[in-house]
Amino acid sequence: MARIDLNADLGEGFGVWQLGDDDAMLGIVSSANVACGFHAGDPAGLLRVCRSAAQRGVRIGAQVSYQDLAGFGRRFIDVAPEDLLADVVFQIGALQAIAQAAGSAVGYVKPHGALYNSIVSHRDQAAAVAEAVATVDASLPVLGMAGSAFFEEADRRGLRTVTEAFADRAYQPDGRLVPRREPGAVLDDPVLIARRVVNMVTTGQVTATDGTVLPVAAESICVHGDSPGAVQIAAAVHEQLRTAGVEIGAFC
Amino acid sequence: MARIDLNADLGEGFGVWQLGDDDAMLGIVSSANVACGFHAGDPAGLLRVCRSAAQRGVRIGAQVSYQDLAGFGRRFIDVAPEDLLADVVFQIGALQAIAQAAGSAVGYVKPHGALYNSIVSHRDQAAAVAEAVATVDASLPVLGMAGSAFFEEADRRGLRTVTEAFADRAYQPDGRLVPRREPGAVLDDPVLIARRVVNMVTTGQVTATDGTVLPVAAESICVHGDSPGAVQIAAAVHEQLRTAGVEIGAFC
Amino acid sequence: MARIDLNADLGEGFGVWQLGDDDAMLGIVSSANVACGFHAGDPAGLLRVCRSAAQRGVRIGAQVSYQDLAGFGRRFIDVAPEDLLADVVFQIGALQAIAQAAGSAVGYVKPHGALYNSIVSHRDQAAAVAEAVATVDASLPVLGMAGSAFFEEADRRGLRTVTEAFADRAYQPDGRLVPRREPGAVLDDPVLIARRVVNMVTTGQVTATDGTVLPVAAESICVHGDSPGAVQIAAAVHEQLRTAGVEIGAFC
Amino acid sequence: MARIDLNADLGEGFGVWQLGDDDAMLGIVSSANVACGFHAGDPAGLLRVCRSAAQRGVRIGAQVSYQDLAGFGRRFIDVAPEDLLADVVFQIGALQAIAQAAGSAVGYVKPHGALYNSIVSHRDQAAAVAEAVATVDASLPVLGMAGSAFFEEADRRGLRTVTEAFADRAYQPDGRLVPRREPGAVLDDPVLIARRVVNMVTTGQVTATDGTVLPVAAESICVHGDSPGAVQIAAAVHEQLRTAGVEIGAFC
Repeated sequence: MARIDLNADLGEGFGVWQLGDDDAMLGIVSSANVACGFHAGDPAGLLRVCRSAAQRGVRIGAQVSYQDLAGFGRRFIDVAPEDLLADVVFQIGALQAIAQAAGSAVGYVKPHGALYNSIVSHRDQAAAVAEAVATVDASLPVLGMAGSAFFEEADRRGLRTVTEAFADRAYQPDGRLVPRREPGAVLDDPVLIARRVVNMVTTGQVTATDGTVLPVAAESICVHGDSPGAVQIAAAVHEQLRTAGVEIGAFC
Repeated sequence: MARIDLNADLGEGFGVWQLGDDDAMLGIVSSANVACGFHAGDPAGLLRVCRSAAQRGVRIGAQVSYQDLAGFGRRFIDVAPEDLLADVVFQIGALQAIAQAAGSAVGYVKPHGALYNSIVSHRDQAAAVAEAVATVDASLPVLGMAGSAFFEEADRRGLRTVTEAFADRAYQPDGRLVPRREPGAVLDDPVLIARRVVNMVTTGQVTATDGTVLPVAAESICVHGDSPGAVQIAAAVHEQLRTAGVEIGAFC
Repeated sequence: MARIDLNADLGEGFGVWQLGDDDAMLGIVSSANVACGFHAGDPAGLLRVCRSAAQRGVRIGAQVSYQDLAGFGRRFIDVAPEDLLADVVFQIGALQAIAQAAGSAVGYVKPHGALYNSIVSHRDQAAAVAEAVATVDASLPVLGMAGSAFFEEADRRGLRTVTEAFADRAYQPDGRLVPRREPGAVLDDPVLIARRVVNMVTTGQVTATDGTVLPVAAESICVHGDSPGAVQIAAAVHEQLRTAGVEIGAFC
Repeated sequence: MARIDLNADLGEGFGVWQLGDDDAMLGIVSSANVACGFHAGDPAGLLRVCRSAAQRGVRIGAQVSYQDLAGFGRRFIDVAPEDLLADVVFQIGALQAIAQAAGSAVGYVKPHGALYNSIVSHRDQAAAVAEAVATVDASLPVLGMAGSAFFEEADRRGLRTVTEAFADRAYQPDGRLVPRREPGAVLDDPVLIARRVVNMVTTGQVTATDGTVLPVAAESICVHGDSPGAVQIAAAVHEQLRTAGVEIGAFC
């Protein structure tokens, strides 16, 4: 029986501000990329979402980011590698203590937003993030894109790399995501998205914006928790995967 | 042979801004209260000071604070206990990862500034801080003032409490510190301060502002790292203690 | 014909985070208390809400706050008066430029959250806020509570004081608001709230939690924009006031 | 008689943290680029430096920046132009109120750090900054580099552009500054720097790192206030200019 991990970004409120419906998403996904305070997530909110995740048996990952609350971590910052390394160590450690206080633990690391995109090709920042993970705990897997500089740097340090694909993001012919600012970057039709994900998982393929069929060898599928209709989309993905006989569970 | 711990607040720069001379202080003290980012301390700076501490065999403590960079953690904030608990868990965890990356570990927890003062008597905040420490690692000692609500709450949770006295702060007749905003709150004569500390350690007494002689049963003496002449004062304390036959080393 | 001002807190998102429905509220109120970045409000979001307010002819006020994004300005901070004065000057100036860029201007000042509550009785902070307004523009009216230290300090500096009452907040017998953390502090029944406001405006009275009837001489009624059902409540208030023959318009 | 403006970055502390010696620098320069809180500068500190500037008759400029306290505004941030525009409007307005409270006014605008460097060529960000200045007050001059995209955008909006040269920064053969991270980027010999500035002012030339002689048509010379020996360097520049018969005064 086929099996796939579903991951989503959670814990992305800040203080009085909420984003998405964490509790609903925790009923759907198997891995929760929990913010670490740098792009979102105040400690009390992080503790709440980690407690919910622990209760539901959803694995917790550290969603590390550039330090940029105002930009939600979606803006490239030309941070020096030695600073970025320390920033990532700090974030993982903070979430480790929060996750432990919730009766769970950090099970993997996933870079967020602009950092995620940057380290596809930015060698120095990619090395800094990989080194930070290896420094904190070399047994922590990292989520990211196959072929990225980040995965090369993670491989060099013996980290387990887990390739993910995106349920609702458009792909460029070269396999990179269409930047979020461009029109059509984010898909919004639950039926279409669910079908797309089932194809990814069962055929290992996804269609780019120009019709190119790209190979996808993902161990995890990212569904978004913060877009309009996010819960409905994630639920549709979940349901269509089950209908297609795919088991949903955290990657090994 | 008498023995005493000397502790100082370190790692209290932020980004481009420096405060005090961490390297010089690390040659004098036996315990470093390292900031955790909430009142001071960017991750890269924290990593640097933890590396220096590790190299010199100085123990690292987590100096937890209200979240207030603009006020350097010196302003009381009426934060809800459940938020404060999460804030403290977050800070300890962040510094644990940084300390580990530096080849060391967090060996104790010391509240900073206004939080330190508040939890002498503010029961709910005191309980939140104690609970946070117990949640992260119940074997971590806490530094603070004897007789404080914080120590009562720490005792109730089985935490080891380590009483400290202040080398350069004036004491009120009731044993509390003269608030920092008042004149005479901070002493600045190295000779006087060093003599005062030797008396504290060898006689167990300190003289309050009105001449009252107060008992002091401190296992650690706090010397400041951020006041003018801080290094000179700390060095004088160190030297006079050694001259008086007192060994300087981390509390057990 | 009776006339009353309706004011609401707007522009209280931050970056990606939204709070309330500013556009809907701008169709209801006559005065918009726009955040100034210290408890909420990134510059681009503030510019958007100021543009909407300008288009709809809604007056803009500077909603000044303690510097506390994480706590949304709802936590008392023991900030020194000289720092608070500068904080308030900074915030008013920032919003003045934003309002001007939107084709409007700042027409009054209203303290937010914990600062609002604090300066009912905290003399030094009250004086600092009043002095800040007088320093920036002594012709700016201030919104607040009658009998407060803030209004006394404003009077002393020749500022115009505008008394407001709260549509959906419970009153204590002494005329102060029930603290937000206590049960029953915030009313949520639109019909009840609308009736209450009509009574305030037409009879000059409001009933406290213990049944005491308090005099209310308000020139402005505060309706909340960030509570659940806020728009529905504000719309009910607006409609019942019109039905009762009360004109809604900015205070003079 | 030749005449030149000397400008320096001031007000760049934050809370408890100091940077440079503002008072000493205010005795040397004719224009103070005062931080606006985004890369440095808490309101109370800004008010203090503006008061000192006002007392000494030094003109105040708004030193606008990316929002990045942790990076001191020295890291490129890929902020969207509409966000940057609002950020700059906000900063200028905030400092206008502070300067007015100090009995002075904002007399010009100078971008800081990475923003300064970025808008030499980043067209969209350059247009956003120029548009922000024009929106707040089209009579405000802007300080920057001749030939930059920023100056082109400023020209298009009718802003007065004031070309500056750098006393202590090495120039590349193409006229751009050597990036701060590279060795030799910042000169530190007061005698050499002072001679260099006198040559800039009297001959209109500066020598690049490869020996190329570049034309310099500066109306203002930037001396740094935050490097080691800053005051000594600035004083040497001041003295050698006076010795060479050059009057120091704010640009017209």
